[in-house]
Amino acid sequence: MSTTTILKARWLLTMTPGSEVLNEHALVMKGERIAAVLPWAEAEAQFPDAELVEMGQHVLIPGLINGHTHSAMSLLRGVADDVPLMDWLNNHIWPLEKKWVSEDWTYQGSLLSAAEALRGGVTYLNDMYFFPTAMARAAVDSGIRAGVSINVIDFPTGYASGPDDYIAKGVAAYEQFKGEALLDWTSAPHAPYTVSDETFVKLRELSERLDIQMHCHIHETEDEVQGSLKQYGMRPLERLNRLGVLNSKMMAVHMVHLSEDEIAMLARQGVHLVHNPNSNLKLASGVAPITALEAAGVNTILGTDGAASNNRQDMFGEIRAAALLAKGTTQNSTTVSARTALEMATIRAAKAMGREADLGSLEVGKLADVVAVSLDALECRPVYHADAQLVYVAGREHVSDVWVGGRRVLKGRELTTLDQGALLDRVDAIVHAMKTER
Amino acid sequence: MSTTTILKARWLLTMTPGSEVLNEHALVMKGERIAAVLPWAEAEAQFPDAELVEMGQHVLIPGLINGHTHSAMSLLRGVADDVPLMDWLNNHIWPLEKKWVSEDWTYQGSLLSAAEALRGGVTYLNDMYFFPTAMARAAVDSGIRAGVSINVIDFPTGYASGPDDYIAKGVAAYEQFKGEALLDWTSAPHAPYTVSDETFVKLRELSERLDIQMHCHIHETEDEVQGSLKQYGMRPLERLNRLGVLNSKMMAVHMVHLSEDEIAMLARQGVHLVHNPNSNLKLASGVAPITALEAAGVNTILGTDGAASNNRQDMFGEIRAAALLAKGTTQNSTTVSARTALEMATIRAAKAMGREADLGSLEVGKLADVVAVSLDALECRPVYHADAQLVYVAGREHVSDVWVGGRRVLKGRELTTLDQGALLDRVDAIVHAMKTER
Repeated sequence: MSTTTILKARWLLTMTPGSEVLNEHALVMKGERIAAVLPWAEAEAQFPDAELVEMGQHVLIPGLINGHTHSAMSLLRGVADDVPLMDWLNNHIWPLEKKWVSEDWTYQGSLLSAAEALRGGVTYLNDMYFFPTAMARAAVDSGIRAGVSINVIDFPTGYASGPDDYIAKGVAAYEQFKGEALLDWTSAPHAPYTVSDETFVKLRELSERLDIQMHCHIHETEDEVQGSLKQYGMRPLERLNRLGVLNSKMMAVHMVHLSEDEIAMLARQGVHLVHNPNSNLKLASGVAPITALEAAGVNTILGTDGAASNNRQDMFGEIRAAALLAKGTTQNSTTVSARTALEMATIRAAKAMGREADLGSLEVGKLADVVAVSLDALECRPVYHADAQLVYVAGREHVSDVWVGGRRVLKGRELTTLDQGALLDRVDAIVHAMKTER
Repeated sequence: MSTTTILKARWLLTMTPGSEVLNEHALVMKGERIAAVLPWAEAEAQFPDAELVEMGQHVLIPGLINGHTHSAMSLLRGVADDVPLMDWLNNHIWPLEKKWVSEDWTYQGSLLSAAEALRGGVTYLNDMYFFPTAMARAAVDSGIRAGVSINVIDFPTGYASGPDDYIAKGVAAYEQFKGEALLDWTSAPHAPYTVSDETFVKLRELSERLDIQMHCHIHETEDEVQGSLKQYGMRPLERLNRLGVLNSKMMAVHMVHLSEDEIAMLARQGVHLVHNPNSNLKLASGVAPITALEAAGVNTILGTDGAASNNRQDMFGEIRAAALLAKGTTQNSTTVSARTALEMATIRAAKAMGREADLGSLEVGKLADVVAVSLDALECRPVYHADAQLVYVAGREHVSDVWVGGRRVLKGRELTTLDQGALLDRVDAIVHAMKTER
């Protein structure tokens, strides 16, 4: 397809570093890529034959990137709240996963999350879960981009029998979906406390061989750090550094408990950090030291975590929480500005995924992943600064339209790629079974 | 009017302490009060002539109470973000207020906030601002309840010349609106750093004479505490205690910086605390010690603060933030449960306002302030526990209908009391003038 389309909205945020809010500019898409960003009149003059999509008091922004989630866990949204972490895992999440998780369960849950994501302005889900073929299919079927995980845990599950089996199944999935434009892949050791040194090395080698990013939970809780000191005589980050995985290929998720030396090391070695503010609060893990990480120059991006620990898979909520929490916990109202928080969900996230050339900003030549947010609602009025308004005022409910690679996947808040009613019926059936047979 | 109406929804939360989620129960309203809460079939059998409002996958809850806001400041929503507090006040908020605030400006801004509140499930705004007649009119015209402030600052503004003038004008407004069922009044010294001992005593006497609550910003910032130590040789709370204002008539707002002794004193003396989690983060004031306050038994409720410091006047957001922040900052996932956070915005808030007999829960004989929240949206599925779902999943955008004293003020997300388009046109005109003439 090489249709040319002009998107006209009141404001446009390219999200290139240092850029201002553009007033009355249009985005021109040609096929799957961005052909121009121009003032309204110039766009219409230069592309007279283009299809015109006229919007009102909207802001156009790059598609949001959710840097960490477990998409299928939408099926466990709200199954247990306000309980201690180990009770939550041992008595709720793990027994349910053991009994229910399958290829189809994972597919349906991932599809539900993909639908929620698109309706909330998210065009990329960096996922970590079992049955990667299920996530891959859900992404392709819904039209969202995904980072699919070659996910490894050292113990057996219903999905795989042990590390080599996880790797073999993940690589087979990777081979099966090779060339699928919507998908990236990550080499994903679950966490330092569930993965051995030997497996970390294998996954590092896999990441190098396939030239894909790594994706790992690290330093989520104080218990994790203490456990590693006991088992390995060192903190998880020191162990991982010795294993050679702390570099610009690593997306390190959570990172709540960090020393000054560790922060300096992360900056020096170009590790990407995925901040999950709401999940870290809800599971009572703590608050990651984002202001110190910013000062050190670490590339920090944002994620929701799965719906079992962050029941609302809402990147607008994570962006706002990142800006607010950093201020409140450092008593510095200038840290993590609205603009910085938006960068964490767009251009910086694209960099962390290794997709900076194609994604994360509205620039000529990049893929046309575009979100239109309406600031017309009473709750969003008045508008003094459209960028800050997106962070401190607007919600995901104000997303009206979404394009992924030039394809309009959300139109006036309706998904164009999925039969939403049929999906919800399938979800209801699965959840009914889980409620009655547990 | 004495129409009888049956509201049928999938779930109902009475919010009486210790109550469970009720399945397939109806709320029966007779005129302005609640006549019954019964299973669906029984309600229809007992009230065969009643008007029937059938809803779907909705939860009925008591109207939410916003325990602290400056409604008119919606006109300054987003005017300056990410700046230090004193820069924000001295170079943005105060000059704009000095130039623009009038009876009409306050009325239009208050009306905008009332509309936003109702669309977000809030049926009561505890306000603090100048020109109380403007807030009173906005509440009456929109059909929302309000706590209107007899607001006093020791320095002159465009509204009043000094403490006695503020008090006289406030009392005149109180007299003018006497008997108006939607309104309560508060005796409202602005803050310890802006109000003298003499004025505090006058406002205490006013509160006693009119039998109304007091409403005051206290211990918002560390600077405030330090300033008081310098000026008065004691912390603000000690000073206020000596002035006799720390008792069950006081709604103490913010209270971020508290010692253990102060927390014990607040509990002992029955002071109500209004927690503003998002405003305290955004202005970098810090995080109030809610877990310790809960342990001590202090009656804590929730507020948004004004739109200039919390651009999103969203009580669903405050409820969620209260539950999440307490967990993250104490590393205890069981503190401030979903149920507790909901109580802070309903039954506990009614108690703090001195309106426990009429408001805050869905009980027979109380006023019918009722909110219907739909959990039907894809983002709200599946539902395991309707109460936790309201806190951790649903947003204000899922509020479909609102009744205040039996009057349906929001119907299918449309305001029935206001011409929303005309209101937004007036807001646009005011803001246009502020942008071009500043």
